[in-house]
Amino acid sequence: MTIEYDQLPQNPANFVALTPLSFLQRSADIYPRREALIYNKRRYNWSQLRSRCTRIASSLAARGIGKNDTVSVFAFNTPEIFESHFSIPMAGAVLNAINTRLDAATVAFIIDHGESKLFICDRQLWPVLRKALETTRLKPEIVIIDDADANEKPALPDDIEYSFYEDLVEHGDDSFVWRPPEDEWQALSLNYTSGTTGQPRGVVYHHRGSYLMTMGTVVSWGLPLHPRYLYTVPMFHCNGWGHVWTMTALAGTVVCMRAFSPKLLFELVEEHAITHFGGAPVILNMLANAPESDQKRFDRSIQVMTAGAPPPAKVLESMNQFGFEIMHVYGLTESYGHILQSAAQDSWAQQSIEKQAELKARQGVRFAMTEAVDVIDPETGASVPWDAETIGEIVIRGNTVMKGYLKDEEACSKVFKDGWFFSGDLAVVCDDGYIQIKDRAKDIIISGGENISSVEIEGVLYRHAAVGEAAVVAMPDEKWGEVPCAFIELKTNAEATESELIEFCKENMARFKRPKKVVFGELPKTATGKIQKNLLRDTAKEL
Amino acid sequence: MTIEYDQLPQNPANFVALTPLSFLQRSADIYPRREALIYNKRRYNWSQLRSRCTRIASSLAARGIGKNDTVSVFAFNTPEIFESHFSIPMAGAVLNAINTRLDAATVAFIIDHGESKLFICDRQLWPVLRKALETTRLKPEIVIIDDADANEKPALPDDIEYSFYEDLVEHGDDSFVWRPPEDEWQALSLNYTSGTTGQPRGVVYHHRGSYLMTMGTVVSWGLPLHPRYLYTVPMFHCNGWGHVWTMTALAGTVVCMRAFSPKLLFELVEEHAITHFGGAPVILNMLANAPESDQKRFDRSIQVMTAGAPPPAKVLESMNQFGFEIMHVYGLTESYGHILQSAAQDSWAQQSIEKQAELKARQGVRFAMTEAVDVIDPETGASVPWDAETIGEIVIRGNTVMKGYLKDEEACSKVFKDGWFFSGDLAVVCDDGYIQIKDRAKDIIISGGENISSVEIEGVLYRHAAVGEAAVVAMPDEKWGEVPCAFIELKTNAEATESELIEFCKENMARFKRPKKVVFGELPKTATGKIQKNLLRDTAKEL
Repeated sequence: MTIEYDQLPQNPANFVALTPLSFLQRSADIYPRREALIYNKRRYNWSQLRSRCTRIASSLAARGIGKNDTVSVFAFNTPEIFESHFSIPMAGAVLNAINTRLDAATVAFIIDHGESKLFICDRQLWPVLRKALETTRLKPEIVIIDDADANEKPALPDDIEYSFYEDLVEHGDDSFVWRPPEDEWQALSLNYTSGTTGQPRGVVYHHRGSYLMTMGTVVSWGLPLHPRYLYTVPMFHCNGWGHVWTMTALAGTVVCMRAFSPKLLFELVEEHAITHFGGAPVILNMLANAPESDQKRFDRSIQVMTAGAPPPAKVLESMNQFGFEIMHVYGLTESYGHILQSAAQDSWAQQSIEKQAELKARQGVRFAMTEAVDVIDPETGASVPWDAETIGEIVIRGNTVMKGYLKDEEACSKVFKDGWFFSGDLAVVCDDGYIQIKDRAKDIIISGGENISSVEIEGVLYRHAAVGEAAVVAMPDEKWGEVPCAFIELKTNAEATESELIEFCKENMARFKRPKKVVFGELPKTATGKIQKNLLRDTAKEL
Repeated sequence: MTIEYDQLPQNPANFVALTPLSFLQRSADIYPRREALIYNKRRYNWSQLRSRCTRIASSLAARGIGKNDTVSVFAFNTPEIFESHFSIPMAGAVLNAINTRLDAATVAFIIDHGESKLFICDRQLWPVLRKALETTRLKPEIVIIDDADANEKPALPDDIEYSFYEDLVEHGDDSFVWRPPEDEWQALSLNYTSGTTGQPRGVVYHHRGSYLMTMGTVVSWGLPLHPRYLYTVPMFHCNGWGHVWTMTALAGTVVCMRAFSPKLLFELVEEHAITHFGGAPVILNMLANAPESDQKRFDRSIQVMTAGAPPPAKVLESMNQFGFEIMHVYGLTESYGHILQSAAQDSWAQQSIEKQAELKARQGVRFAMTEAVDVIDPETGASVPWDAETIGEIVIRGNTVMKGYLKDEEACSKVFKDGWFFSGDLAVVCDDGYIQIKDRAKDIIISGGENISSVEIEGVLYRHAAVGEAAVVAMPDEKWGEVPCAFIELKTNAEATESELIEFCKENMARFKRPKKVVFGELPKTATGKIQKNLLRDTAKEL
């Protein structure tokens, strides 16, 4: 009966392109008066939020922004970046949220590579943008977020044209008809990763993926209706792990946190009866190590999603005392964020606290929207045995794997192979099928939840006149998890000091990426002349 | 940048056809030892269940069943029909679950119209199938479910070939590689609507729709991980409202109920710590009216989804005493089941119990997977005002609207118009945007030019202590054109007179809406338990 079943075509009533924009429409329709967004004294309900987003979208459209145009947002976790997740795609355009810690050169690269047509910038970050614009080929239109609660308010230019963000709202049109994607495969956002090779790569998300990311997160994290979510995770990271859209689908209440401090987090959790938040292990570590007078203990259970590095068992344990229940997840920018979770099994409850922490510290099993994750021998493509010993590469298949890297076919063809996305992360599979990472792709240093490419730092170091050879590896750090440590072989007769090289790095790239330690000496090499980073890593552990 | 964003194509790693079959793979991978299905003494965990489904799928494939082949299942709520929701599509085929109350002639119609290639039949229903096969053009292969716990075990034929269901399992191949749909728009199931008049229509679901139905139900019903679901709703109704797939996605535990009785329901809820179940208001009514010795009260909250008719406020109220929290939903077979829900608002908590019941008895607002629902003037297409008075037709748009009616282009073109699916249900919109059904189009009574909702009159009648069931239809009237006529089934041992009930109506609603006649007796019902108003209408014409 092939013909008859296949003779029932799609029509506008039974086929609608999946898009997370639908969530805002629904929550504003059904829960118009429910509190949506809180930031200090500012409060928007779902009706107000939709109205603001609609007005901004209309203002963007009036400026000629439309389908497949890139709009950059360089901002902290304030309502504006939350709104941008809706308003920019409502105009048909692509949201490009930029890491606030990036240096001017990288921002300039992103503007030109991503072809940013309009750039929304927090006033505090204006000096970085200004410097970036000195070298960019493209000059996007500038919109300034002038947050009254910002700590720093650098002077605004009188030689460059700009508008204020609130003007987009004020002069916007409430009756603007938003533009649903023509196709659910249409680009939704553009997220630059630091990458392993130094050059940032533009990871493109589509509407379908973000819709399904939301749905699968609700199922697998067991999210209830109307959660109260504290936005500690920067929204420029994988679109805030997709929770902008997820919390909207659930008509939750989102509390914005412009800058993190343990004291403020505890206060906000209490003041707003927060039920969920997220953070890299470094954040959890800071909570655990905060002065006792800043800490608060809650007699209810608060759900916390953590990602970026395996949380040390000690941190997991220490969270219990606050009432924080940790869900450890794993993902990459390329997979829209989390795609594995250390999903709890009933049997774990009978284990010791240490054992439980150990089990939970693994990366785990796939989320509901993830079709398949495996660990394979990259040479043969065969799955590794579930022996917790044999190392292979994590490969992923599913609808929350990126469209691809913008303008980089070569990079795409390297990661998309044999029906899989190759993560570059090395892992084992335990006897219960849970995946555990053994070694991040070895060049990456994860510091405070940020990926730092060792190759990029080496590239800067190599530019110093005295440096003969450079190798950067991760060094364990109590506060940041890992920090970069540089091993340097100086050129013959050349001289340089540790502080001189660190200063040089600070001047030539984002400050947070600079090595915290520099060690001078001969670099160990293999017979073929490759630097043995594994040995350097061991050395760094002893420092 | 249109070209660059659009130059990132779909590939097998980043685009996977949505299918509810993925849920079984995932739950069996992650929670293999968790209890999946319980039926009397039978117990299957997720690993066992997947293994059984895989074997059955392999047996079907070995019999030549493949893509777009129809496999019928004529069975009560036992594990076999649950498994069929996976095994049949795992072979690439289309599941056609048939209402167990249908007569042989209708079953024969379905076999021929749906081109059933294989027919899985509960032994108790064999006499119906046997009779049906006497007249069918097609003779599908027969598979008998021989349930040890069946009440009736009619003799099996010695003149017709058949196999037993368990043979499919036993001789199946555990290593069979299931066939994901080639396209998410591929047919998944075929559900014949009984309709209250005329020939049954074959409603075709696709994989995409059922996947999204699951996801949206989790979001909007606020389902947790690992629910314990009692399957009271027949799985032949809209595939059991999609909960076969939803409970699998959540790795829940499903308890099968072959035949409903209030006593058994209370016992199973207690024995298996049930957290969720569903049922038409008539089921709730039976629970409320069961002998007190059969009832149980629970000091925890059990979530109950009800659909099929607006639950009388009184029934909603009475459920509270058992610990049953009712979510009233609305949908049609054509919309995969529920697409509206009487989603609770915070403000309702301050209302009286009666007022709350009244608010909850409305059909409500759309589910998360439903793109749009409106009430429009079918002539002009304009939305009705939110005045709770102006009647229009409910129209629906979304990915859980059927592919179409099998082999019935004319019927398709009648319901798919102007970008909407036309439901045939008449409703108003209240001032909070909640939709309330006033009647099926054909059930509305037009008296002296006024539209009178039969549902409204029935709602009043249900509040009378003696009324068990009530149905109101139009009766021809020389003066008014039509007037309401009520058909009443009294509760056991209860008494009431015609004038008493008419008086009761006069006191409780607009006088002109009162029934002019009341007829006592048993109400005629369809196989699905719907009151056959067409027969009552015929009766009323003779009065």
